[in-house]
Amino acid sequence: MANVTTDSADIAEEETEHMIENNFVVEAENVASSIDPKEMRAVILAGFGGLNKLRVTKKTMPEPQHGEVKIRVKACGLNFVDLMVRQGNIDSPPKPPLIPGFECSGIVESIGENTHGFEIGDRVMAFVCYNAWAEVVCTPVDYVYKMPDKMSFQEAAAFSLNYVAAYMMLFEVANLREGMSVLVHSAGGSVGQAVAQLCSSVPNVTVFGIASCSKHVAIRDSVTHIFDRNADYVQEVKKISPEGVDIVLDCLSGEHNGKGLALLKPLGAYVLYGASNMVTGETKSFFSIAKSWWQVEKVNPFKLYEENKVMAGFSLLNLLFKQGGGVRVKTVMDKLLSLYNQGRIKPVVDSLWALEEVKEAMQRIHDRGNVGKLILDIEKSPTPLMANDSTETSEAGEEEEDPEGDNDNKERMPFIQ
Amino acid sequence: MANVTTDSADIAEEETEHMIENNFVVEAENVASSIDPKEMRAVILAGFGGLNKLRVTKKTMPEPQHGEVKIRVKACGLNFVDLMVRQGNIDSPPKPPLIPGFECSGIVESIGENTHGFEIGDRVMAFVCYNAWAEVVCTPVDYVYKMPDKMSFQEAAAFSLNYVAAYMMLFEVANLREGMSVLVHSAGGSVGQAVAQLCSSVPNVTVFGIASCSKHVAIRDSVTHIFDRNADYVQEVKKISPEGVDIVLDCLSGEHNGKGLALLKPLGAYVLYGASNMVTGETKSFFSIAKSWWQVEKVNPFKLYEENKVMAGFSLLNLLFKQGGGVRVKTVMDKLLSLYNQGRIKPVVDSLWALEEVKEAMQRIHDRGNVGKLILDIEKSPTPLMANDSTETSEAGEEEEDPEGDNDNKERMPFIQ
Repeated sequence: MANVTTDSADIAEEETEHMIENNFVVEAENVASSIDPKEMRAVILAGFGGLNKLRVTKKTMPEPQHGEVKIRVKACGLNFVDLMVRQGNIDSPPKPPLIPGFECSGIVESIGENTHGFEIGDRVMAFVCYNAWAEVVCTPVDYVYKMPDKMSFQEAAAFSLNYVAAYMMLFEVANLREGMSVLVHSAGGSVGQAVAQLCSSVPNVTVFGIASCSKHVAIRDSVTHIFDRNADYVQEVKKISPEGVDIVLDCLSGEHNGKGLALLKPLGAYVLYGASNMVTGETKSFFSIAKSWWQVEKVNPFKLYEENKVMAGFSLLNLLFKQGGGVRVKTVMDKLLSLYNQGRIKPVVDSLWALEEVKEAMQRIHDRGNVGKLILDIEKSPTPLMANDSTETSEAGEEEEDPEGDNDNKERMPFIQ
Repeated sequence: MANVTTDSADIAEEETEHMIENNFVVEAENVASSIDPKEMRAVILAGFGGLNKLRVTKKTMPEPQHGEVKIRVKACGLNFVDLMVRQGNIDSPPKPPLIPGFECSGIVESIGENTHGFEIGDRVMAFVCYNAWAEVVCTPVDYVYKMPDKMSFQEAAAFSLNYVAAYMMLFEVANLREGMSVLVHSAGGSVGQAVAQLCSSVPNVTVFGIASCSKHVAIRDSVTHIFDRNADYVQEVKKISPEGVDIVLDCLSGEHNGKGLALLKPLGAYVLYGASNMVTGETKSFFSIAKSWWQVEKVNPFKLYEENKVMAGFSLLNLLFKQGGGVRVKTVMDKLLSLYNQGRIKPVVDSLWALEEVKEAMQRIHDRGNVGKLILDIEKSPTPLMANDSTETSEAGEEEEDPEGDNDNKERMPFIQ
């Protein structure tokens, strides 16, 4: 992403390196915040790797440039892609140290020159090319959207990336229409839940959801059929729909590419929108991404011709920050806000976390423990750790571990449904 | 195609092998037709290869089975895929001898048992899994559509395959919407002209057409921009639209796969719907198709993910005859007939040919001399050949020749604009 290296360099120069420990007391934080009005708290990724690369520090507050809006952040979204960033397991990663995070909600605090459409005090949600996980963020006005009055900051931070991605995949890439069927992996995740809700906005759409058994009760009303992630879902789907499905949304990659293509009906569309199976605790990012690239099976266009199939890839971050998709996304956001205002979609928030709890939050996503979205709530105080805390010895990204496995330490994680 | 081998075997048994020469006099044909009411004239492909494998013979007339309609054929469509069939250059070709042809128009002559929706005397157009190029054809009722009153038989024979293919590629695979741009190869061909007309039914769609220079005058009003097929169209398009196009429809394959994908805007769709560049006079069909399959570059799904692109294949014949797409195509046909009745689309007929002129008609498609559709008109008498005829020495499929080259013998071909 073009401008990230420069930003990271600035961050490196400006960094004051006041590390705030995980169990830093709240009072001390507030004092720290109030000492210098030009400083802010932010999550910093010091280098690519495990959870120990993350810390909360003081940073110089950014000021809006031409065409930018400065936002006093209230809540940030945490996504699977943030785990991939942490591991450097993305294409052309920026140079750390950096502030992670691609989306937030908050209040407009000031506006750059020649910047129109917003006023100080507006409640907004925004995309940011990194830097979202901080008390203050600046981002181009094209990536900022006014929040509906009835939308909370937590909902807004759960809205942008997931609903825009789900909408564009279903309606702009795959052309969802009445009577179709959709298979979605990680149906309990925040994209999966957005997909399920958007599918229900179209008459007579069948949703096949795949999720860990532990989530089935929580999400069974949002999908038509639900399968365990360890089941042979190809066979299970074919028992119900022998001819296959119209749309497969795959965030896992690997063997699921071929399975997804094989499950398509004629004229069906397979959409690859993530590769979360790449995140397995591997910290050698270069080898990990190279391995993933080469291991996935390439597809001959003639196979698609003979079988009447569509294969697509979708990366909202690339669309926004590398490919000039801001205007197109704005149009989609307008449609989504209309659906929200009609009560037809509503973000599912899994849990709220303080900035200082970002490691536990990431562990929860890594363990696929969430139903819906994890939110970093800027104003939330970290929950004191319990006696059986074992974050330092079992953290995601440090050790090779089974991502399917249950996390025995869930009870130490504070979350609000 | 599943039931083709059986049909071909029947044909082989029944074949009476009365070969009718190219310059057979009309009177003799009529006499031949009237001798036995259970016989009919048909084009026969005796084996895969060059034009010399085609002849017109007498065949036993088929009778409709359960669910079939028997049609007294008036006109048949001739498509590029018929050249590929002649060469055996398709996936799982049926065993010759066979009657080629996938579409026709005519009058319902009788109806099989348990067959509803049509009456004797109905003017219809139909898809057929081979066997269309004959005086009489039987086909399942799902592939038969009533013609609008104002549509001629020639127009109807030019309508089904090309408009359904164009519509499904634009609106069901690629999701054409207002303001988009479309690149179409062979813009002067019958699919190309259908694509151009359908694009004009959507506001503000830009069509980039590629065609031989000789066709530019004839088709320049149907497209927004036109390029010569020998030009570097990637550069030409980028001069006008630096960001590329939304949809590429490719019937050529080969190097155009990569060029097409490279020309796409983010979220753009490349659709491969043919491989006419495979037809270069090669008669060793197995090697030809194997070579084509392996030479085309396979695509990594991650490339589509990173670039936000869609790669699709579309084969209407496979959809209809192998993949049970009849009901879906019926819905599309209803929409197309509505557009026809509104005067928004109208088939462009390049020329009419007698059955006995099928070689010259194929040569014309091979030489890319046509603008719009070539029709085999069952009631047309063959035009006497001129003195400078050289069909036997320059026929397509017999010799390696430059498909880009002009055909010096065009004046010998009778056609009606």
